[in-house]
Amino acid sequence: MPASVTIKEIARQLGVSKSTVSRALRDSSEISQETKDRVLELARQLNYSPNPIALSLLNNRTHTLGIIVPEIANPFFSTAIGGVEDIAYSRGYHVMIYQSHESYERELIDVQHIATRRADGLIVSVSSQSEKHDHFVELQEKGIPIVFFDRVSDAVQTHKVIVDDYKGAYDATEHLIKEGSRRIAHIAGPPNLSISRNRLQGYRDALQKHGLPFRDEWVVASEYSQSEGTERAYQLMALRERPDAIFAASDRIAMGVHWALRQLGYRMPEDIALMGFSDLSISALLDPPLSSVAQPSFEMGQQAAELLLELIESKSTPASFETRVLKTNLVIRRSSMKNIS
Amino acid sequence: MPASVTIKEIARQLGVSKSTVSRALRDSSEISQETKDRVLELARQLNYSPNPIALSLLNNRTHTLGIIVPEIANPFFSTAIGGVEDIAYSRGYHVMIYQSHESYERELIDVQHIATRRADGLIVSVSSQSEKHDHFVELQEKGIPIVFFDRVSDAVQTHKVIVDDYKGAYDATEHLIKEGSRRIAHIAGPPNLSISRNRLQGYRDALQKHGLPFRDEWVVASEYSQSEGTERAYQLMALRERPDAIFAASDRIAMGVHWALRQLGYRMPEDIALMGFSDLSISALLDPPLSSVAQPSFEMGQQAAELLLELIESKSTPASFETRVLKTNLVIRRSSMKNIS
Repeated sequence: MPASVTIKEIARQLGVSKSTVSRALRDSSEISQETKDRVLELARQLNYSPNPIALSLLNNRTHTLGIIVPEIANPFFSTAIGGVEDIAYSRGYHVMIYQSHESYERELIDVQHIATRRADGLIVSVSSQSEKHDHFVELQEKGIPIVFFDRVSDAVQTHKVIVDDYKGAYDATEHLIKEGSRRIAHIAGPPNLSISRNRLQGYRDALQKHGLPFRDEWVVASEYSQSEGTERAYQLMALRERPDAIFAASDRIAMGVHWALRQLGYRMPEDIALMGFSDLSISALLDPPLSSVAQPSFEMGQQAAELLLELIESKSTPASFETRVLKTNLVIRRSSMKNIS
Repeated sequence: MPASVTIKEIARQLGVSKSTVSRALRDSSEISQETKDRVLELARQLNYSPNPIALSLLNNRTHTLGIIVPEIANPFFSTAIGGVEDIAYSRGYHVMIYQSHESYERELIDVQHIATRRADGLIVSVSSQSEKHDHFVELQEKGIPIVFFDRVSDAVQTHKVIVDDYKGAYDATEHLIKEGSRRIAHIAGPPNLSISRNRLQGYRDALQKHGLPFRDEWVVASEYSQSEGTERAYQLMALRERPDAIFAASDRIAMGVHWALRQLGYRMPEDIALMGFSDLSISALLDPPLSSVAQPSFEMGQQAAELLLELIESKSTPASFETRVLKTNLVIRRSSMKNIS
């Protein structure tokens, strides 16, 4: 943005941050009248002429929310997007959807696109390959608020909407134990996502609570994809000491496992119990139907949209940010019901 | 857009169309020099001052493509979007995704959002509830080109990318006949979509070619959804004279049928054969796996993006528009293999 070069210059001369200059030019309530006067005076002296697009867009809201998800084909995300749209359209906002394809570079490009004021705010679930989150902080500094859902960033201070991944995984593992499994493997998600770490911890703690061993070779990491679920199932079933249950960190992984187990000739749940996480609608259609941990994905999208609209429509930054933790729900189907089989 | 009021006034006084004025102001090669001079002269006299956003956006491309699909959760569309992104990002364009949820009103709002120059062009697959397509024509008149894919509009002259729906349906029906089915029902899509009508016609012609009767009660119309597929399966299996095969106009419909048939106690393909259309990746995971007609969805998205970029990057309208018809491919799995069962 050409205008930000000049904002940068004003900021440098006054010894304040760019975002302070930007907010002062927008007459934000967060900036003192004294600072606003100093900024406006210097802007006049320097003959500061903001980019007409930038200026107009600063004054006129776009009434558009951006949303970035890793993969729109994942029904968990498409349902959450439905929740965002539900709130946004009812309040006169458009929704533009972007997908990162789990790529840091793509996520960066999408954020930069939104940074040119194409949206009033951003809802995001981060890519599994993003280890740096500076691009989100920079977007906030440009005055565009962000709300995270599901896959959140610890590096960014803002509202977040998650589910209790720890409790969901704990309950799932405990259910497998109660149904009689003793050698329970876990296919975990990428370790740089908090959802993956929390689900793994829930699994570990449930094993410990019930006096079962935690064994390194029974925990393998995977992308949240069907094809990698299949590969990891091959790896686990090839072990000299095979597991008698697999708890997959997502239903997409579990779908790949389900396919692999059938190809390999195993009966579910007699030979091996299977449990997923997310409860996609397709999971009930598999044979045997897949047990899973349901997440209120539509509601997560709704709450993220409500929190974002609050940030957009209030003139000031809130005193504190909140992280809403929604409840998961165990959905038991045939794939894990060893006791009655 | 406030600026278009003035363009309208210039158009009225000169007795030309708004799009002629708009193109003259943009110095388009489609407008004669004489007309451009008349438009510019009157614009000066009327002290015409275009909206700065509109002006800037006319000069500076946004390097953004918009895409509207009925439902991102439908893997056919999410895969096609992947194809659009593949071409667009490699050529330095962003992709913004919108979903119409099969609603005419939502599609209209999305098109109006793009009309305010948020994208340089639009790729669209129309909503099943859209009977009027004026909003697309108006978008073109604003100088924003459109390319249709899969669900196209006969009312709009532009490039289109489709598959040979007629041939795909003909082949599917003929396959069911060759496997021994004689009472073949068809669950068709909404009749106002050309894809639905072409698939229905392929089904009819295959029956006729093989001397089988076409019976009204064996053809029912459905939305392209799993839940309605279930309802229509109930309706067909309740008939006094039951079908021995069902050809569903999409895999999503077929998934609902698959579920219903299992609930009702039928064996596939022994009691009834089943065939879908689209070959979603999930179809191979069902038990029995679902036969289907594969569409090259990723390639459809790629070709639509290439055609749109051609329209955006050339200064003039092409001499003629093309409709690319891609081939379908029969994928035979257990749900339709009566002969070996």
